[in-house]
Amino acid sequence: MIYKIPKTYFLVSGSSEGHTPLNAFDGALLNAGIGNTNLVKISSIIPPHSTEIQPITFPQGAIVPTAYASISSEIPGEIISAAVAVALPRDDDQPGLIMEYSGRGNREVIELTAKNMAFEGMKMRQQETKEIKSISTEYKVKKIGAAFAAVVLWQ
Amino acid sequence: MIYKIPKTYFLVSGSSEGHTPLNAFDGALLNAGIGNTNLVKISSIIPPHSTEIQPITFPQGAIVPTAYASISSEIPGEIISAAVAVALPRDDDQPGLIMEYSGRGNREVIELTAKNMAFEGMKMRQQETKEIKSISTEYKVKKIGAAFAAVVLWQ
Amino acid sequence: MIYKIPKTYFLVSGSSEGHTPLNAFDGALLNAGIGNTNLVKISSIIPPHSTEIQPITFPQGAIVPTAYASISSEIPGEIISAAVAVALPRDDDQPGLIMEYSGRGNREVIELTAKNMAFEGMKMRQQETKEIKSISTEYKVKKIGAAFAAVVLWQ
Repeated sequence: MIYKIPKTYFLVSGSSEGHTPLNAFDGALLNAGIGNTNLVKISSIIPPHSTEIQPITFPQGAIVPTAYASISSEIPGEIISAAVAVALPRDDDQPGLIMEYSGRGNREVIELTAKNMAFEGMKMRQQETKEIKSISTEYKVKKIGAAFAAVVLWQ
Repeated sequence: MIYKIPKTYFLVSGSSEGHTPLNAFDGALLNAGIGNTNLVKISSIIPPHSTEIQPITFPQGAIVPTAYASISSEIPGEIISAAVAVALPRDDDQPGLIMEYSGRGNREVIELTAKNMAFEGMKMRQQETKEIKSISTEYKVKKIGAAFAAVVLWQ
Repeated sequence: MIYKIPKTYFLVSGSSEGHTPLNAFDGALLNAGIGNTNLVKISSIIPPHSTEIQPITFPQGAIVPTAYASISSEIPGEIISAAVAVALPRDDDQPGLIMEYSGRGNREVIELTAKNMAFEGMKMRQQETKEIKSISTEYKVKKIGAAFAAVVLWQ
């Protein structure tokens, strides 16, 4: 195996104002508690028999495989939201599926969309969904803002 | 070495309808046979002395370095295509080059473009091309669809 | 740990003309000296106690975690620039922060923006900046061109 298969995961979200869109994204990562790591974006599977854990503090600069949604905006007053959802199958030997969604608007709508996406993805796999976990964040932009939600995989 | 250097690779492609563009992308990955993995996007080299293998079934949730092209569309009736091409050098001690291309239109055009790109990339390296391998897929969108083509690297 | 934590880093930049935007990007990577590697994009931390090194020649096809800015253009005569900046904290036990920026215009402006972004990101962490390192490249497009700047992390 080139990489070890992750065995644990957790959900986090955060939002921030920033000097630039990338600074706002960086601030949202800090707000989510994973701002001092090196995120590597992955598409988007929870290995079977994985365990959800409480968010952990990684060694600074650790390289961390993460499925995430993010959105930034430079429109003062705009509401932006980001969400991730994890659908877990009834059959424990099957993988879970992560879906990411972000957009303008309230977190309820964005998070529901992410949950529906995860549910639909399990149907596409002909798997019955046992449970859907999700997290989202909503942010009202002052000048430049970002919202971020993630499923972080770990050993 | 932080990561092991890959020693094998294979080409896959797939397409799908989906509930959302991301669901269609997920479906295209499933159709390509790598839907239950965690793809990490890489730019885009076949290590020297690598071997092409038949597509393998990865452990579910494995993290897999992959060079890929993808496109989604929400325009009913639209034809979308995705292709990857691998140019292999006459000098076996040199690396191969992967190029990705996607767009509206028939797969023949999109795949030929990817092949030309790979050939041009070898010229830029002053390497003579021994062989070009490629794969593509074409999809006619019903409501929301995606096309995907990839070179997957493995140990 | 799924991945080892990087211990060294270096800054590179490059630019190129190309047959397509992706070929120009590939050429810019070659020009930067890392064209025969598999870059994996990361967000964007220098682990504490890391050492800056001279750019090294990687094994061909190595998978390399990299924070980068890139821009391509198909407008003849247009000036494009890409920059990265690394802010290092006075407190050696804290991580450094990488920021990436690219755009139309001269490298001085783009590089200064990246430096400001890195400085602002340290302020957001309530860390005093000891030093900012940066690199940039500027390119005048003939037909299709790309500019690229990166911080490469290594073991």
